[in-house]
Amino acid sequence: MQETDRKTDLRTRLIAAAEAEILEKGLLGLKARDVTQRAGCALGAIYNAVADLDELVMRVNSRTLERLGDALAPASAAGSPEAVTLALADAYAVFALENRRLWSALFEHRLPEGAAMPDWHRQEHEVLIARIGAPLQNLRPDLPVEEIHLRVRTLFGAVHGVVHLALQGRLVGVPEPLLRQEVAALVGALVLGAKVARAGAMQGGDAPR
Amino acid sequence: MQETDRKTDLRTRLIAAAEAEILEKGLLGLKARDVTQRAGCALGAIYNAVADLDELVMRVNSRTLERLGDALAPASAAGSPEAVTLALADAYAVFALENRRLWSALFEHRLPEGAAMPDWHRQEHEVLIARIGAPLQNLRPDLPVEEIHLRVRTLFGAVHGVVHLALQGRLVGVPEPLLRQEVAALVGALVLGAKVARAGAMQGGDAPR
Repeated sequence: MQETDRKTDLRTRLIAAAEAEILEKGLLGLKARDVTQRAGCALGAIYNAVADLDELVMRVNSRTLERLGDALAPASAAGSPEAVTLALADAYAVFALENRRLWSALFEHRLPEGAAMPDWHRQEHEVLIARIGAPLQNLRPDLPVEEIHLRVRTLFGAVHGVVHLALQGRLVGVPEPLLRQEVAALVGALVLGAKVARAGAMQGGDAPR
Repeated sequence: MQETDRKTDLRTRLIAAAEAEILEKGLLGLKARDVTQRAGCALGAIYNAVADLDELVMRVNSRTLERLGDALAPASAAGSPEAVTLALADAYAVFALENRRLWSALFEHRLPEGAAMPDWHRQEHEVLIARIGAPLQNLRPDLPVEEIHLRVRTLFGAVHGVVHLALQGRLVGVPEPLLRQEVAALVGALVLGAKVARAGAMQGGDAPR
């Protein structure tokens, strides 16, 4: 094997090992020693393949984001902007329920203070936001595009919050078996509100934005 | 000093020290050694005053919940159920912004697997939920009370999610300076949707719940 092939191979094995570790123990239990042991290499070998453990986590999260994107994709075919928004939110809840540790890792990972997220990983987040954003643009065609971009993040945060508290089993969260129903109720009220606000705006009224 | 007074005094000092430590470093940086050093007692003294570090954190969180309750209280006087709901959500965002580390500790603290939350702390959460619940009951008087209880948790999770992602500085979150505006937009759309759904239900229509 060539030197670069060996490096690529080690890298692939380390990412797979880190993913398996997160799946088993969650991100907060991730230890470099367990990852290298599982990948069958020396502890120091990590630094031949990636910059540090943070990069390894971001590579795992990158795969999760891609899978999440795949899971959200069918929602685009749901029909009206309202139906697409509801389908996206439901697909998000289902993905979190079925991939709880990998999904949690997306939000538990924090770079050391002062470290900037690399561009490749930043871009993957933008792709996710854009996917959620498309139907919302159709929900409120009366709003300027910058406002839509902001509202997409707000909608995402709202759905995410309900999912997050439920999956953490928080007292203030909804019980997990009712999560999908409650996400549907939330998004149902939101799209209904958006529809009324749009109608008001189109009649030149002073509707909420 | 009597033995019980001494114990109460130590306990008070330890809770104050833990709170100061969380304020300075956040919950994830909390160490028993730093707490006892700050309280001016031996490391083992913690176990004379509280069961363990988890109880100490819950005692700090208990104070934060009380302060949060105080911060939410004026919202009840905002007028219509819609106005009260908006005022509650805004007060929640402001509280989080102004008490970020203590507020984060409410959601970062996890009891060891299998440990149940003590009743006294559980009850404090119920009080918070009840406070948020009151105006929502007036928003949707057509819904059965169990459904309202659930919907309160969903509304809370939605607002919490937007606040949480913004304060964590997540890429998918809204920028912090726009947080209050976006919480208002979210809750505005939600109460508008609730109003339309209620009107539909009262006309015997097949409106979303």
